[in-house]
Amino acid sequence: MNQDRIRSVCSQIKAAGLDGLLVCPSEELLFLMGFSPMMCERFQGMFLTAGGGSFYVCNQLYHGEISHAFGAEMPIYTWLDGESMTEAVSRALEENGLGGGGRSGCRLGVNSSAQAFNILDVAGACGIQFVNALDVLEEARIIKSNDALSCLRKAAGIADKMYDKAIAFVKPGMSEADIRRFLLEGMASAGGEKCWAIVATGPNSSYPHYTGDGRSVLEKDVVLLDFGCAVNGLYSDMSRTFFIGGISDEERAIYEIVLQANQAGEAAAVEGAFIPDVDAAAREVITAAGYGDAFFNRLGHGIGYMIHEGPDIKKNNLRKLRPGMVFSIEPGIYLAGQVGMRIEDIVAVTEGGNEILNKAPKEMIIV
Amino acid sequence: MNQDRIRSVCSQIKAAGLDGLLVCPSEELLFLMGFSPMMCERFQGMFLTAGGGSFYVCNQLYHGEISHAFGAEMPIYTWLDGESMTEAVSRALEENGLGGGGRSGCRLGVNSSAQAFNILDVAGACGIQFVNALDVLEEARIIKSNDALSCLRKAAGIADKMYDKAIAFVKPGMSEADIRRFLLEGMASAGGEKCWAIVATGPNSSYPHYTGDGRSVLEKDVVLLDFGCAVNGLYSDMSRTFFIGGISDEERAIYEIVLQANQAGEAAAVEGAFIPDVDAAAREVITAAGYGDAFFNRLGHGIGYMIHEGPDIKKNNLRKLRPGMVFSIEPGIYLAGQVGMRIEDIVAVTEGGNEILNKAPKEMIIV
Repeated sequence: MNQDRIRSVCSQIKAAGLDGLLVCPSEELLFLMGFSPMMCERFQGMFLTAGGGSFYVCNQLYHGEISHAFGAEMPIYTWLDGESMTEAVSRALEENGLGGGGRSGCRLGVNSSAQAFNILDVAGACGIQFVNALDVLEEARIIKSNDALSCLRKAAGIADKMYDKAIAFVKPGMSEADIRRFLLEGMASAGGEKCWAIVATGPNSSYPHYTGDGRSVLEKDVVLLDFGCAVNGLYSDMSRTFFIGGISDEERAIYEIVLQANQAGEAAAVEGAFIPDVDAAAREVITAAGYGDAFFNRLGHGIGYMIHEGPDIKKNNLRKLRPGMVFSIEPGIYLAGQVGMRIEDIVAVTEGGNEILNKAPKEMIIV
Repeated sequence: MNQDRIRSVCSQIKAAGLDGLLVCPSEELLFLMGFSPMMCERFQGMFLTAGGGSFYVCNQLYHGEISHAFGAEMPIYTWLDGESMTEAVSRALEENGLGGGGRSGCRLGVNSSAQAFNILDVAGACGIQFVNALDVLEEARIIKSNDALSCLRKAAGIADKMYDKAIAFVKPGMSEADIRRFLLEGMASAGGEKCWAIVATGPNSSYPHYTGDGRSVLEKDVVLLDFGCAVNGLYSDMSRTFFIGGISDEERAIYEIVLQANQAGEAAAVEGAFIPDVDAAAREVITAAGYGDAFFNRLGHGIGYMIHEGPDIKKNNLRKLRPGMVFSIEPGIYLAGQVGMRIEDIVAVTEGGNEILNKAPKEMIIV
């Protein structure tokens, strides 16, 4: 248990006017407790109260492991398969001053991994009002420490080196799955944890979160790689777009626009900048070039203990950048079913400026 | 889109008294639609109405891929980053007769992957009552077709063969991570998809869903392997326990009890059996031997398109086994922090009997 982090979250719970917070197994739980168990369909999670108390509810199946990980000071409430989960939760809430008895209408926040089906069952049976509390947890980790920045740099460095290797590796005839495996194995052998990768070739590059891996690389393809890994739990996330054997005039023009947007966004992302202005700085480049409708997502997302966390770089996030905030800058142009390009770096805000964590080349590469 | 499956789910929606169902990206969506996209923190999912209608809501980021996968007949409602997600959902619900305008109190079920934080935001903004509808979706796939059974057999066969290889592979000094990688790579190269594995050695075997992988195998260790893969999306899930270089008298006794419980459970799991009796058949063996408190979980879980689906084999599942139901039989004895053992096969109920899909040896093995 990291007492400073728990204290920080508890002060956010109070500031949000909540009575408590439920943190189910996730990177958020890992951040607070240094351990997060496997989660199945059986409800489980740690409850934090606004007053700083904590207790855990899980099926008996998990009791041994939770008790071992969190120590004897963490009260654990359990039930057995075949018994009622909601009765165990009710008992736990009641004994900890959160609902039960004459007290109803308790407001508890939920983290990112809380499962709706379980939360609905608990809310119905226990008279609890649950609310979205992602921001409560994000706020507690939105400013990265020097130690965290050091891990983020290492994770970015693993991705950077992997991009150099990927350019040398990718050839026509390889499948997206082949390339993906190459990236994952390469990052893992360089010390990356929790490695992940999107490999989108040809028209699949037009889907920003492309899900498949079955297509094979053809001559004149665009290849979009979006990948990363974690170091001590802190993630990297980098996108690069390159070309196989040639490029059309329109593709060359699109690449230049995306690159200019990336540079404009990164130049704007400095201490004190108003976040909507950062989004606009990159977006204006793309809009001015006539591709505004083809850049339909936010400019970036915060990153750290999760791949997506605060602060989002988008027009309705009305706050200013502060040193220690870390996020992606990832403008793209996506023409559905045809072609997509994205250039993404991770940026850390510093006093008076910023540091671009990714160093991999961004000039146009045709292999 | 699989029309038969959609029809089956819609009849379950009606039978459950719901107005509709939300199916977020998951194996449940894959089962119904043949495709399931990546999911991030942005809300997305397919809504089915009791009348058989369907529509999809997602961020614009996913529009191209969803439209490509689900075709022009699927209405898609979107919003942009920086705009309001709940307004898009409200519009979609209203245009499809689910809430909005004067209509409130619509009851919609949610699937296993619906994220609580998003569902709470939607419920609050759109006046929708969401409820747990896992059983609605499970019921539509609880009886496996012959094609599905054939895939389940193949997936079980890959796990069976992998166990033989694992026994020959595991040696003192290897880490749990080494063994896990061996299992995952071996199943993948045998054609398994979505391979997964729990490797728990020594005292870690006492945690049924052990989460780590850092310990190294020692002489006289117990090794518990729980692993599987999918073939055409249908899963295997097998557990075996074996021993390194020797075994204590108590360990030998525990193994024999678990094996007898496994055999008793499998013998009882035939067409027409009352599910609580199947659970009891195995449990009584363990209880009679004095280890009742150390077998604290259900005897088994249904398996198929998800690793855990209906029917659960537990004392409060008051139904009878029917041909085509497929589930695990996995008694275990877990002494927290000391030792755990589990022997798990997948069983398919047939007319008048059953078929044990796993063939890997269950006699005690000391390597």
